[in-house]
Amino acid sequence: MSTVKRISILGSTGSIGKNTLDIVARNRGQLQVVSLASRSDVEGIVRQAREHKPKLVALFDEEAASDAENSLAGSGISVLSGTEGILEASTISEADIVVSAIVGAAGVMPTFAAVEAGKDVALANKEALVAAGSIITNEALRTGARILPIDSEHSAVFQAIMGQDAAGVQRVILTASGGPFFKKSQDFLDGVTPEMALDHPRWKMGPKVTVDSATMMNKGLEVIEAHWLFGVPVERIEVVVHPQSIIHSMVEFIDGSTLAQMGIADMRLPIAFALGYPDRMSLPFDPLDLTAEGKLEFFEPDLDFFPCLKLAYKALRRGGGFPAIMNAANEVAVEVFLNGQLPFTGIPQVVAHVMETAPEVQDRNLAEIMRGDNWARKAARDYIASSEENG
Amino acid sequence: MSTVKRISILGSTGSIGKNTLDIVARNRGQLQVVSLASRSDVEGIVRQAREHKPKLVALFDEEAASDAENSLAGSGISVLSGTEGILEASTISEADIVVSAIVGAAGVMPTFAAVEAGKDVALANKEALVAAGSIITNEALRTGARILPIDSEHSAVFQAIMGQDAAGVQRVILTASGGPFFKKSQDFLDGVTPEMALDHPRWKMGPKVTVDSATMMNKGLEVIEAHWLFGVPVERIEVVVHPQSIIHSMVEFIDGSTLAQMGIADMRLPIAFALGYPDRMSLPFDPLDLTAEGKLEFFEPDLDFFPCLKLAYKALRRGGGFPAIMNAANEVAVEVFLNGQLPFTGIPQVVAHVMETAPEVQDRNLAEIMRGDNWARKAARDYIASSEENG
Repeated sequence: MSTVKRISILGSTGSIGKNTLDIVARNRGQLQVVSLASRSDVEGIVRQAREHKPKLVALFDEEAASDAENSLAGSGISVLSGTEGILEASTISEADIVVSAIVGAAGVMPTFAAVEAGKDVALANKEALVAAGSIITNEALRTGARILPIDSEHSAVFQAIMGQDAAGVQRVILTASGGPFFKKSQDFLDGVTPEMALDHPRWKMGPKVTVDSATMMNKGLEVIEAHWLFGVPVERIEVVVHPQSIIHSMVEFIDGSTLAQMGIADMRLPIAFALGYPDRMSLPFDPLDLTAEGKLEFFEPDLDFFPCLKLAYKALRRGGGFPAIMNAANEVAVEVFLNGQLPFTGIPQVVAHVMETAPEVQDRNLAEIMRGDNWARKAARDYIASSEENG
Repeated sequence: MSTVKRISILGSTGSIGKNTLDIVARNRGQLQVVSLASRSDVEGIVRQAREHKPKLVALFDEEAASDAENSLAGSGISVLSGTEGILEASTISEADIVVSAIVGAAGVMPTFAAVEAGKDVALANKEALVAAGSIITNEALRTGARILPIDSEHSAVFQAIMGQDAAGVQRVILTASGGPFFKKSQDFLDGVTPEMALDHPRWKMGPKVTVDSATMMNKGLEVIEAHWLFGVPVERIEVVVHPQSIIHSMVEFIDGSTLAQMGIADMRLPIAFALGYPDRMSLPFDPLDLTAEGKLEFFEPDLDFFPCLKLAYKALRRGGGFPAIMNAANEVAVEVFLNGQLPFTGIPQVVAHVMETAPEVQDRNLAEIMRGDNWARKAARDYIASSEENG
């Protein structure tokens, strides 16, 4: 790369944010941070701001923003708060690319705002496309913003499709590690604790994504994300369980040829690819050694054992606001599970109940989607409360 | 594809030639044959000519050409003979693309002639680049001819590199099935008969290539071919044994990302890719089913057990005319082995001896290379004869 890319990082104190800053620190001549945003991690964002010297820091939490402002007094770094602060960080004029790594539906608005402002978006927040895929991809077409996936699976598909005949794409095949409970019994699932669900065999990620991996809802969200990113219909997006997580995903073409992207399981690889696109940055990680790995295995996913994956396919087939409703119900269920107040197998039950009782919701604008999201959160909480009373 | 591509097939009665005609027969609206060439298979080429109605048929053998001319009298198809006939077939003005599938060093001149005439070349004859890689790739740069690999390994690399940042290529990793004798003992190798060597576990190919697969000289030739096709230095071309032959080869980039091309083991896939490039043709073969395959395995190649692979790396490192000399010695050794007059383990011995005793040979022009080739053939025959006397 000849010029410096200027980066805004939304969710800088989370797992993706920290990995992004690690890549920036290794490539100072090519990458520069212009804004950082976090929900409430004062200590984390102040440390990051001192090291990376952005123009702007935003904290959603007002009190946290006030504390950060005191800590950064005299540094010349502006500190903003609330939704306005996050949106300012996501649309700041100096940014060439916005890393969208806020977890959950909270990332939808800032992602949309970045796309609306014509910024390229390195997208880790899969909920933005799950809940508002039609709106955000249409807006990107309008403004010319590019959406560059950071999810390892979508980065793999993106890399495999680059420079290929787009009309030749037959199927997108997302690989899944199977999570920590692959090949366990149904009885085992009933006793899964948050600690067990947070112990992922292959990937180091934040708690929400790790639980979603254990239920395979994460793969379901990725199916929906792939639909919007690559314009492939639901019936041509498949999931294959691949416990070694070496092949990160595949694209099959109409001539029977399949291109697979592979690499070590380190989120910094897809992050660096999105930041450097279309060039590749030289990274100091060990290359893949397939002979050391020995073998790669592949299994059909068990949709009865992992009902969340089936629910996600169902939501995508119904379309409209249903993926947003499913996502909101899942966010509530995972939060309550992590608080120890819902069994692991209760997560798909909550999501299924909310989807079954949901009204028709369209996806013509963000307000409609947010209404569906809010309805689903309330419905999920009500259902969990009533189950507790009955149970 | 909007327009019909007109094809010349050199070596039409061999394995690659027949598979090419199968693809043409399935895609009549897109592909059309304008010339066919064979060494001496009258019956085969006459049948092909009647079905595909080319403008020209060429047989190297004069008597065979005369017989074919009689059989095709009144058809309006011209029949030519000798080197001139083959060269006319390879440069015929109507051809958009020339399938170069003559086996061995005999394919070098016709391949060069096609490139010199500015034709795109779908290259199956790996010896052309092994013996004359510098000359042919320079000529292609001069005339604008594109060299599209048909070897499944090089087609895989070509597909993986398409549209990627060329400066980002770190390593080319060619996969090898390991052939029929992978994991056998040295004692076993001593007793290998031509029948055993011709029984390849994964690929259906002609006898020369099948024996080269058994000795792994085929992979050595492919390493040299990859060097010229992709401009990658010898130290960044690696071989991995992958018995399932599902991954046909891989490209590793400087960021640690690897792209692998996969598919069923059917030569018609890379042939169709080269003929359709840059579009993909819809083919009626079963798609790859990784869950049915179950697992993919990878092993380091044993260079002591397969000395031919080591010899090929050595020839490429020495450069100049050495790959041509190695290739010629190997062609003689394989021919004598197939006639039952040389043990299987004698093949690398012959090649090693010829390479050790070879004079310095340059590769500035085809005449120099042909001199080296001729010297090596004689040296190989002399060495085999003297070994028989002594043994």
